Amino acid sequence: MGQILLALLGTPLVAGAALGDQNQESKVGPAVNSSPAIQVNPIGVVKRQGDRALIELCPELAPALDGLAGFSHVWVFYWFHENDRPEERATLKVHPRRDPANPLTGVFATRAPVRPNLIGFSCCRIVSINKNIVEVEGLDAREGSPVLDLKPYIPASDAIPDARVPGWLKRNKGGG
Amino acid sequence: MGQILLALLGTPLVAGAALGDQNQESKVGPAVNSSPAIQVNPIGVVKRQGDRALIELCPELAPALDGLAGFSHVWVFYWFHENDRPEERATLKVHPRRDPANPLTGVFATRAPVRPNLIGFSCCRIVSINKNIVEVEGLDAREGSPVLDLKPYIPASDAIPDARVPGWLKRNKGGG
Repeated sequence: MGQILLALLGTPLVAGAALGDQNQESKVGPAVNSSPAIQVNPIGVVKRQGDRALIELCPELAPALDGLAGFSHVWVFYWFHENDRPEERATLKVHPRRDPANPLTGVFATRAPVRPNLIGFSCCRIVSINKNIVEVEGLDAREGSPVLDLKPYIPASDAIPDARVPGWLKRNKGGG
Repeated sequence: MGQILLALLGTPLVAGAALGDQNQESKVGPAVNSSPAIQVNPIGVVKRQGDRALIELCPELAPALDGLAGFSHVWVFYWFHENDRPEERATLKVHPRRDPANPLTGVFATRAPVRPNLIGFSCCRIVSINKNIVEVEGLDAREGSPVLDLKPYIPASDAIPDARVPGWLKRNKGGG
């Protein structure tokens, strides 16, 4: 699992890295944007334990977990902190999974860990909750990733089994 | 729809507002947290059009949408900008949907628009994509909400129809 994570997330995906002539359309300068920057304060950190992970929240936030045990799954929002550089945040297109066989694709049509805001999220099975620590399965985040938010998984709004995906994703067995 | 949104999102949910003696456990001071704050730069803005919404990205980000049309649904990440005050970001518990009949619940076990980081997200059906503008259905975000990220909906990782939810949520017909 660690090896898989490393392969998936370890190296920033830079559009056109294998196709130099496409570099021009893969980057952008700092956004010209009238909205002010937003400050996000991490609520905790990811600690890997093999296939599982511990989400260690700041202790004073433990009351905010009350009731989460009633859900089987949780959305974990985290930050791709190892990619927090201007170049990665300026990347607009990638070959998904760094595979040149996958078409050069806009980052908003992928789950790539390089994008203007380095938000990652995973739907995780809750294994246990103990005070300020949530143990989960299925978290694709590296050791030390700052955690930004937790939200319960609600099938009525979140489960769309028949959602349509493009051909390249089907060839990749569902992983984006 | 506008009325529903107003009811859902308009007024900050403050734990214990109807139960004064529970105020003590509902708030927390600024987090004691060794992780540095993270700067998020909005990629665009929400413009409401009745039941639908337009996500108007910064024009220079349009290439990052290439390929999104191959998906039927998109996750929209936005910011509850109208609640960006210290009190709302210090809220740890709420009565979901502001209904005292729902148990006082930790914000990480709800989708409440008051929480340490005011991240909202919705799974939306893509209606159309035109240059830097994505038209969607199903976006629970108010006019002018800053948009933080877009990610494709991938059933293989995102659809868990049989995920378990607590009793109060079932009484609320699935909405958290």
